[in-house]
Amino acid sequence: MEAVKVEKKDCKIVVAVDESEESMYALSWCLSNLISQTTINNIVLLYVKPPPPVYSSLDVAGYIFWGDVVRALEAYGNDLVKSVMGRAEDICGKFRIDVNVERMVGSGDAKDVICNIVDRLKPDTLVMGSHGYGFFKRALLGSVSDHCAKHVKCPVVIVKHPEKI
Amino acid sequence: MEAVKVEKKDCKIVVAVDESEESMYALSWCLSNLISQTTINNIVLLYVKPPPPVYSSLDVAGYIFWGDVVRALEAYGNDLVKSVMGRAEDICGKFRIDVNVERMVGSGDAKDVICNIVDRLKPDTLVMGSHGYGFFKRALLGSVSDHCAKHVKCPVVIVKHPEKI
Repeated sequence: MEAVKVEKKDCKIVVAVDESEESMYALSWCLSNLISQTTINNIVLLYVKPPPPVYSSLDVAGYIFWGDVVRALEAYGNDLVKSVMGRAEDICGKFRIDVNVERMVGSGDAKDVICNIVDRLKPDTLVMGSHGYGFFKRALLGSVSDHCAKHVKCPVVIVKHPEKI
Repeated sequence: MEAVKVEKKDCKIVVAVDESEESMYALSWCLSNLISQTTINNIVLLYVKPPPPVYSSLDVAGYIFWGDVVRALEAYGNDLVKSVMGRAEDICGKFRIDVNVERMVGSGDAKDVICNIVDRLKPDTLVMGSHGYGFFKRALLGSVSDHCAKHVKCPVVIVKHPEKI
């Protein structure tokens, strides 16, 4: 068969990134396999910060240190966002392909936030690491990728890091 | 950024096909999004026939009609294979892209057969429909795509038919 040019179209891909090697590998997989030179490629790097911990008002230690703890956690969270997004953008740069990269940061339970944002952005594809927790945690809690694969409306790519298989 | 040619490599994609519109849509998605002009593209169309029904030897009707029933089911199964593979190859043809298409037919429980074949072929990607069963069946039985996403070692793309969402 002869190769024929496919019509140029706009393509939006959401890649869920976090601190894990697996999510960076998923981003690399996406850049290797889903980016076409015949489309306008838009990648949304989505990072979800965990929700802040909730302390009881009767917790004395919490009462004394609450302000400091919150500030420290916020600073740590912001550093983490910068670190993860920086790594992700470095990976995008290394591929030297024509792609528009946008950052998006959510906060809360990762699986709900990812589903809500995908529902809002209506991307062509969602790409994420498998976030395997092992048998017990998976059986009890389920995994973020399981949940998203079931609930989002667009195609979902679940990528496992080869070294963790 | 400037578009740069990616090094040519061999790429094998297994697409699980069945009688559903969703699996044909998944194949179309694969051909639209995962086929690059810079790779040698090999698609394995994998169809899994259900295992033959098991009757008790004490079942009188089964005893009388067993031979005919088996033959009729086998003929129906073979017709189904031809029909599904024919549709899938028609879709591949319509895309007019440079792709080698191979048929593969397995028999048994779809989720186990797909996992075993992916384990053996070691493709770059597995593509499949979501095979949504609705809440109760999914909760009780799980779905083929859930199982495969958890157990195969390569990236898995789960595609939902837009009309069924």
